[in-house]
Amino acid sequence: MKSRLRVSALLALSLSAPLGASAEEGMWTFNRFPAAHYEKSTGAQLDPKRLDHLRASSIRVSAGGSASFVSPDGLVLTNHHVASDCIEQVSTPKADYIKRGFAAKSRDKELVCPGLELHGLTRITDVTAQVRKATEGLDDAKAGEARRAEIARLEKACQTSEAVHCEVVKLYNGGVWDLYEYKRYTDVRLVWAPELGIAFFGGDPDNFMFPRYDLDASLLRAYEGGKPAKSPDFFALPPAGSKLAEGDVVLVTGNPGSTSRLNTVAQTENWRDFGLVPRLMYLSEIRGALVEYARRGKEQARHSQGLFFGVENSLKSFRGEADALFGGAVLEQVRVAERAFKERALANKATGPKVMQAFADIERAMGLARALRTRYDMLERGRGFNSDLFSSARTLLRASVELQKPDAERLSGYHDSNLPGLKNQLGSASPVYAEFEIFRLTFALTKLRELLGADDPIVKAVLGKDSPEQLATRVVRGSKLADPKQRLRLLDGGAAAVQAAKDPMIALAAVVDAEARAVRKRMEDEVDAVVTRAHETIQAARFEMYGTTQYPDATFTPRVNWGKVRGWTEPSGRVVAPFTTFGGAFERHTGAEPFALPKSWLDAKPRLALDASFNFSSDNDIIGGNSGSPALDAQGRLIGLVFDGNIHSLGGDYGFDTALNRAVFVDARALVHALDVVYGQADLLRELGAAPPAKGK
Amino acid sequence: MKSRLRVSALLALSLSAPLGASAEEGMWTFNRFPAAHYEKSTGAQLDPKRLDHLRASSIRVSAGGSASFVSPDGLVLTNHHVASDCIEQVSTPKADYIKRGFAAKSRDKELVCPGLELHGLTRITDVTAQVRKATEGLDDAKAGEARRAEIARLEKACQTSEAVHCEVVKLYNGGVWDLYEYKRYTDVRLVWAPELGIAFFGGDPDNFMFPRYDLDASLLRAYEGGKPAKSPDFFALPPAGSKLAEGDVVLVTGNPGSTSRLNTVAQTENWRDFGLVPRLMYLSEIRGALVEYARRGKEQARHSQGLFFGVENSLKSFRGEADALFGGAVLEQVRVAERAFKERALANKATGPKVMQAFADIERAMGLARALRTRYDMLERGRGFNSDLFSSARTLLRASVELQKPDAERLSGYHDSNLPGLKNQLGSASPVYAEFEIFRLTFALTKLRELLGADDPIVKAVLGKDSPEQLATRVVRGSKLADPKQRLRLLDGGAAAVQAAKDPMIALAAVVDAEARAVRKRMEDEVDAVVTRAHETIQAARFEMYGTTQYPDATFTPRVNWGKVRGWTEPSGRVVAPFTTFGGAFERHTGAEPFALPKSWLDAKPRLALDASFNFSSDNDIIGGNSGSPALDAQGRLIGLVFDGNIHSLGGDYGFDTALNRAVFVDARALVHALDVVYGQADLLRELGAAPPAKGK
Repeated sequence: MKSRLRVSALLALSLSAPLGASAEEGMWTFNRFPAAHYEKSTGAQLDPKRLDHLRASSIRVSAGGSASFVSPDGLVLTNHHVASDCIEQVSTPKADYIKRGFAAKSRDKELVCPGLELHGLTRITDVTAQVRKATEGLDDAKAGEARRAEIARLEKACQTSEAVHCEVVKLYNGGVWDLYEYKRYTDVRLVWAPELGIAFFGGDPDNFMFPRYDLDASLLRAYEGGKPAKSPDFFALPPAGSKLAEGDVVLVTGNPGSTSRLNTVAQTENWRDFGLVPRLMYLSEIRGALVEYARRGKEQARHSQGLFFGVENSLKSFRGEADALFGGAVLEQVRVAERAFKERALANKATGPKVMQAFADIERAMGLARALRTRYDMLERGRGFNSDLFSSARTLLRASVELQKPDAERLSGYHDSNLPGLKNQLGSASPVYAEFEIFRLTFALTKLRELLGADDPIVKAVLGKDSPEQLATRVVRGSKLADPKQRLRLLDGGAAAVQAAKDPMIALAAVVDAEARAVRKRMEDEVDAVVTRAHETIQAARFEMYGTTQYPDATFTPRVNWGKVRGWTEPSGRVVAPFTTFGGAFERHTGAEPFALPKSWLDAKPRLALDASFNFSSDNDIIGGNSGSPALDAQGRLIGLVFDGNIHSLGGDYGFDTALNRAVFVDARALVHALDVVYGQADLLRELGAAPPAKGK
Repeated sequence: MKSRLRVSALLALSLSAPLGASAEEGMWTFNRFPAAHYEKSTGAQLDPKRLDHLRASSIRVSAGGSASFVSPDGLVLTNHHVASDCIEQVSTPKADYIKRGFAAKSRDKELVCPGLELHGLTRITDVTAQVRKATEGLDDAKAGEARRAEIARLEKACQTSEAVHCEVVKLYNGGVWDLYEYKRYTDVRLVWAPELGIAFFGGDPDNFMFPRYDLDASLLRAYEGGKPAKSPDFFALPPAGSKLAEGDVVLVTGNPGSTSRLNTVAQTENWRDFGLVPRLMYLSEIRGALVEYARRGKEQARHSQGLFFGVENSLKSFRGEADALFGGAVLEQVRVAERAFKERALANKATGPKVMQAFADIERAMGLARALRTRYDMLERGRGFNSDLFSSARTLLRASVELQKPDAERLSGYHDSNLPGLKNQLGSASPVYAEFEIFRLTFALTKLRELLGADDPIVKAVLGKDSPEQLATRVVRGSKLADPKQRLRLLDGGAAAVQAAKDPMIALAAVVDAEARAVRKRMEDEVDAVVTRAHETIQAARFEMYGTTQYPDATFTPRVNWGKVRGWTEPSGRVVAPFTTFGGAFERHTGAEPFALPKSWLDAKPRLALDASFNFSSDNDIIGGNSGSPALDAQGRLIGLVFDGNIHSLGGDYGFDTALNRAVFVDARALVHALDVVYGQADLLRELGAAPPAKGK
């Protein structure tokens, strides 16, 4: 949920006029980086060698986030909120590292993050021709199947070992298909994390605001063969005493999760009216429930923290979308752009009518998507069964069926190329908290009954004579899937083992499986496949008009963009400066959550350079998934760490406003200063190559 | 919250073409009932005398609902969910009447409902001329003030004793102002209520559905001078053995809360985009929190039940609005109607341009309303301070200031004419549960901080260094306003007493009072007054075109409408029959909440006529506020009790669809049968004039 990866059935469509009017906009792929454009905009250069260094130093966090190597020994910098699942999982009732922070006393005390994977991009190959060829002459639904099969084949062929992860990525809404090959790190350990009190200072109330005062950072380490991974490409700090000023260039690499800037009006309206509003309600309700759940006790608060942050993050994002899509301005822009594109497309007598037909096909598909959505979300996307144990149960059940089929015919997620990830996930030692599982599943089953109706046959089949709470309690208490060994045993044992286990959670998954698959198949055949086909037509006209002077929508794959350190002026006239200082945090300290600084900070106050920069803002074009992205100066040196955007950036799904949209960073110098003065981490500072930090800005 | 009385600043505007195309649509006032239309539509007659009998037998529940006299001794029938506040308040930890139901052993054991008021309409006087005259020649804001002053004057003059309640009602969006005079009953007692398990059988999951199986009924009694009130006008039952069949005429009297069928497009869009979505999120979040709060324990569940039902009800209503307003069909109708009206209005060269100007004025006012809305909702409408104690504190604080001013200059709600209601409310013995108050206020303060921002001066002034929970705990624990005697003492004592009390909750109210009044004043002067003025112009053109062949929007004042017993056909093709039976409830009984029938019903099963009618549906035009409305046959005899609408009726705020919108009733025969067979209430049956109930339908 963290990066709000709406890996939606409703894929994006390219249509609007080239957007790259402003220098800062654009989430560019590494293989189609507009070097000349960059040079013109910044006066700096980014030659292929340096670009390659950026790529090789950047890291994707599989659970949804970004990071980078910051030493040659596999040290990885990311946000606290990206690492928080790990921090929570390695915590115990006696040692709550979320609350009190963590620092490994030495390398051999670094703690294994269960199930966490890091991916380093090693190669991109254009496979558009192969994907196209596989679907030639087929109707939409058949083409959809053939496309999935070809993608599975390409990924499997690419994935030569468990240390490699391959993904075919749909770019420009199917205008381009690229094969991304990653180096895979599955042994990742926690090195250092600050207290939540400073990582998330100001918490939820400040969530929409800047100035901010957060040390939203943590350090992990990638291991290979039980030893720290070698990472010759990494981001070094600028020399001690370097200044950062308004107007300085900021390069950001990272994995923006999902944008919809090129969607058609029909897609955007369909999402706004029938996707966004129910999502806002679902998230609001579970947020209310989670706040109260955490009041049950200290342990319950600790267990639910991760989901709570995820919900907060998603809510923030979706509220941003609502702000962008209600009130008309953004949507009106999309409408104007679509009209202009259609007019221009119609000037071509040969392809014009086909483009119009493609738009009509998408609109029709949206009608069906609307009718299927609730069922699809509830049954197949698991919103009606929100629980870690249920996820494991479904995965095991499906694996036991799918793995018996030829690779090309399996559900996506169960291809041979997915098996290493699947094993890592099922074998993860992440703790499962029964009480919290019951809470989540009760909530989800209640929504299932409410949204599909108590009379729906599938609801009756699921609940029988039970209330949601009774059922949730029974299947959670009765399941043995909290044990990673049991999960791996069932994965290895296949159908026979899964059946013999008689696990009540797997039985629950089995009750809904046929129905869930059925609605998924309709979504794939009658919505996705139609939309993808229509894209190809529209995108062809688009490439003809604009070439590749545009960037593709975000797809949670590595991108690079640039901007400058900048504050902004609110529509109200209020001027927001680009830098905040340590002193500002102390001014806001009230002692009451979430404005309570940790004791370590209160103690260190006399030694802190209170006027030194803490957080800063820039006009980089970022979105959920960029959390943890490194910020680099024109020389490629680490100057900061993305951790948020301002309220205006939240509409970034649908466009970019240079005047108002801002990325928000932890200043790298602030991190160094805190590691030194607050946390006394001399070894880490040495590894980061940090000289004694300068006092003052 | 129950009837979702959005007594909104955004008043309605009349614009669409006459809607009365279908016989069943229309919430008619008693003084402009279209008798000829009724006769044509039903073949029955409703002469002035009978209409007057309907009026005199009908009752408004001041907290938001409808009811009727059902015996000459002041016996009042309404919904369980309308009386539930009372049932909750007279309950104790040892006697949870919500859960186990209530039956007074004899009249002297009937329990006083704290603060509950019933109103019986006695007279309607047209005061349009007076209201118009008061505002002649004034600019919008001044006219707003003068109008409020004149209304206060008219109400005060009308209100000759504490047994009389008077209200000037804005009808046809200000096209007509009528003075409504009510007889006021302030001593209301609980006579009988069933268990929640049958009153709300199927609960939330069934909330959007029909068939239903609910005995959502309860009996109250109005008292005067400590004795049962005499109610010569009351609704009698039809003779025993009477049949009710599909197609039979159903008259409904009651107090529909609020519709917006005549709003302009600008108003409707403004509400949808900036009012409805935040409201859905607020309600969803508090719903999630309430479900968890109730899990703290049995007592907490009991205390929070009332608010939970209110939230559920509102959510249901607003979701209905969302269904109507998203997706375009309903909104498109409003757009088409507005265009048609404008064209027709422009045909009049003299008034046409003024009408256009009026539309433009409203659109401009909506822009401001949008900017003010969050602040207004949070500070003035109390959404940032959701707590009974805070309400009392604000009322006392404001009363201490307002009552010193001349009557005409006071805030509305503090005129002499409001004093009896105010005293009744403040003197009510409704219990206040400190833990629940803290929960509510914590939630509200958290939203206040989130939505206005932690840096907002008013938020800083409210919270200081406290967290929402700390502040809520301090002011709730420190306040003495839970004691009705203390509240009345402070009301009587005026400013000096209020100040001397040093009550922390009053201190909190004082912190926000200036700011809350300021945003209210802007809303009144720059939005409401502008919109009301614009209405007058538009409505004048409208009366010229259509006369009074249209009904005004609902205003929580007594109305009458008619329809027929009817099922419907879902768009999916599923046919829904208009009657359900007792047997259906037993078929759905699972033993788990909310499908758990009470023990009394399980025990009585052998004696129940399982094929007898339980609930039925009709195509009457109802909306929130009609809860508890009596259903009458063409002879004016009691055949049922409105308790809900089907999912389609929830869009009724913006229009009425005869094919799909249905009201849902408890069959009066079912009530009689249950009182007999399940509850053994021989005295009540005698009072209702019920012969031993017939077995079978």
